Amino acid sequence: MRFENLLAARTLKMHDNAIREILKVVSRPGMISLAGGIPAPESFPMGIMDELSARVIRKYGSGAFQYDLTEGFMPLREALSGHLAKKGIPASPEEIIIASGSQGFLDAVGKVLITPGDRVAVEAPTYLGALSAFTPYEPEYVRLDTDEDGVVPADLERVLACGGVKFVYLVPTFQNPTGRTIPLARRREIAGIIQRHDALLVEDDPYSDLRYRGEPLPPIKSFAPEHVMYVGTLSKVLAPGLRIGFAAAPRVIREWLVRVKQGTDLHTGTFSQALAAEYLSGGYLERHLPEILSIYRPRQEAMTAALADYFPRGMRWSRPEGGMFIWAEGPEDLDMEKVYKGAVGRNTAFVPGKYFYVDKGEGEATMRLNYTMAGEAEIRSAVRILGEEIAKAM
Amino acid sequence: MRFENLLAARTLKMHDNAIREILKVVSRPGMISLAGGIPAPESFPMGIMDELSARVIRKYGSGAFQYDLTEGFMPLREALSGHLAKKGIPASPEEIIIASGSQGFLDAVGKVLITPGDRVAVEAPTYLGALSAFTPYEPEYVRLDTDEDGVVPADLERVLACGGVKFVYLVPTFQNPTGRTIPLARRREIAGIIQRHDALLVEDDPYSDLRYRGEPLPPIKSFAPEHVMYVGTLSKVLAPGLRIGFAAAPRVIREWLVRVKQGTDLHTGTFSQALAAEYLSGGYLERHLPEILSIYRPRQEAMTAALADYFPRGMRWSRPEGGMFIWAEGPEDLDMEKVYKGAVGRNTAFVPGKYFYVDKGEGEATMRLNYTMAGEAEIRSAVRILGEEIAKAM
Repeated sequence: MRFENLLAARTLKMHDNAIREILKVVSRPGMISLAGGIPAPESFPMGIMDELSARVIRKYGSGAFQYDLTEGFMPLREALSGHLAKKGIPASPEEIIIASGSQGFLDAVGKVLITPGDRVAVEAPTYLGALSAFTPYEPEYVRLDTDEDGVVPADLERVLACGGVKFVYLVPTFQNPTGRTIPLARRREIAGIIQRHDALLVEDDPYSDLRYRGEPLPPIKSFAPEHVMYVGTLSKVLAPGLRIGFAAAPRVIREWLVRVKQGTDLHTGTFSQALAAEYLSGGYLERHLPEILSIYRPRQEAMTAALADYFPRGMRWSRPEGGMFIWAEGPEDLDMEKVYKGAVGRNTAFVPGKYFYVDKGEGEATMRLNYTMAGEAEIRSAVRILGEEIAKAM
Repeated sequence: MRFENLLAARTLKMHDNAIREILKVVSRPGMISLAGGIPAPESFPMGIMDELSARVIRKYGSGAFQYDLTEGFMPLREALSGHLAKKGIPASPEEIIIASGSQGFLDAVGKVLITPGDRVAVEAPTYLGALSAFTPYEPEYVRLDTDEDGVVPADLERVLACGGVKFVYLVPTFQNPTGRTIPLARRREIAGIIQRHDALLVEDDPYSDLRYRGEPLPPIKSFAPEHVMYVGTLSKVLAPGLRIGFAAAPRVIREWLVRVKQGTDLHTGTFSQALAAEYLSGGYLERHLPEILSIYRPRQEAMTAALADYFPRGMRWSRPEGGMFIWAEGPEDLDMEKVYKGAVGRNTAFVPGKYFYVDKGEGEATMRLNYTMAGEAEIRSAVRILGEEIAKAM
């Protein structure tokens, strides 16, 4: 028995995640990978993990190991209330909910809102994990134009004016894959457009704490609190393996997210949530964040310098003030697939940018470069190889 | 903006989980609750949690906090391979997958297999959490007759002969809500029926390790390995707050479960999985399980004795050899809702059995009694009160 005949209609439409396949290839020993999108293990606060665990066990006892509220572990929600207030998002602990990574919220929002055929507006390019979460619910994606400053307000206006968009999904700060950040004035403009159309914006913000220079920007949620579901994560500032995502969402949306989560996994791991609560409320995050930044800042600077030194004329790239990615783009006829094959043959990997677009044929000359998982010297040498392969393909 | 207009078609069909509402009422201080279905916190191995955490941090370092395979943390899958072999399920670590509680698998199997309107066969009565997982994918439920020995093979045969059933969902051992166990001969018969119809059985087995007397029975999976997805959990023998479920499933199903899980939560918490791996491979489970049984066995015996002493003539109840529940049933015209209201007024709670049926109007005279969350004296006093309220309602 093979059971293929049992698969649901939605399942038959799902495709293999191309990135997943790429990440398998590049995990080969000896490969210098600028392909991934994961935090450096040396950025985790390993020095305090024993202490943190012991404190949680002492403080919460069996309560840290029991079934808990679907909404989330209350001490974590209390700690996050302060954390969000600092970002300009006033939310009581009761208004904050926890999921199993921000991925858990992307799945839940798809489950709650998307009827097959519904329109969901996403940036071109956009975060692939969001597409993996939404696609099983069979939406129709509507593409939003972007420029160096992120999504183009006039295009958002046009798309919402056409009507029928269930929600808009944006990563406004240090976006994955482009590293781009929407500037303050444009954030206000987007908030206004969302409000005027009484639309729902899902604002995914995994990277804003990883800022190496420049001033923090308020989330779009702070300008349109009633129209934005703000999603954050501790994966980049504590540890992704704990799978802690959090959200502040309009009331109706929040209540349904909780109901569907009840069916998906009952609740997020209690012990993980208790560790996160202690990390925030014990002041560990504030003390540890500068260490994380001091690991990533020189890696980003090494990449920026190497790009200037080794990438051939005709290439352009983003200059983010934080996050994990730089986006590079060549002349229209550059075949990045060819560059990829050449680079992998020389043990150097990245992700061709075309995979981040919902429309086939877009972004053929683009690439995503990650700088969190390799040291400065490796980054320099990888960028040199990529520069040579690009020159060959030009 | 209230956003109700944005809800998906599936969302509009979801109802509040009645049990969830009941559990809120019964969490009032002073309430003796036989309503829940959760393990006693004193059954958790709190004495070793510090040691277990320290060992995991020492052994796996940052690997216990990093992103990991969607399939699951390999050392846990290796440990589970031995655990499953003892139950008569040969499965290599690669054939075992991990989810966020068994709930994670119930959601994933629904996502992979159910197209709206598809038929899913469940016992009458069945586990409510499975319905919460499947319902968002909009199946049509087909009811399977049960007797004291669980699902009735002739009825399973009849339902499968009609065709169009995507999968059959059973809890064969110490079922929730009835506590009933399918005997050996009937397990073989069910395996034969499933194979003959080339059907898929989801065998949910959260309770079989909680056996207070009698001989362990092999899972149905052991008789029909190619046709059964076996789902287990560590929630009852370690701690539910770690959210560790595991499964051994036919290859095609397994591969799709992994793909959809990628979109749901990327993977289950790594640290939780590492703790579970150490708990199994370090021999902690074997040493701790007798302690768990020694907590629950006297509670079950106290309930059985109290039922004999206090329940009026005309009541019948199940006599399980393990698990967490006893199921009681009165004459057809007994209004259990009335008993419930009377009992709650006297600070004593249980769950009326009708909520566990997919067909409205069934099980009006039934009740589920849990004995894991109250001490022996409390159980005795609660059953006495229930007996009095039943007598009043008869």
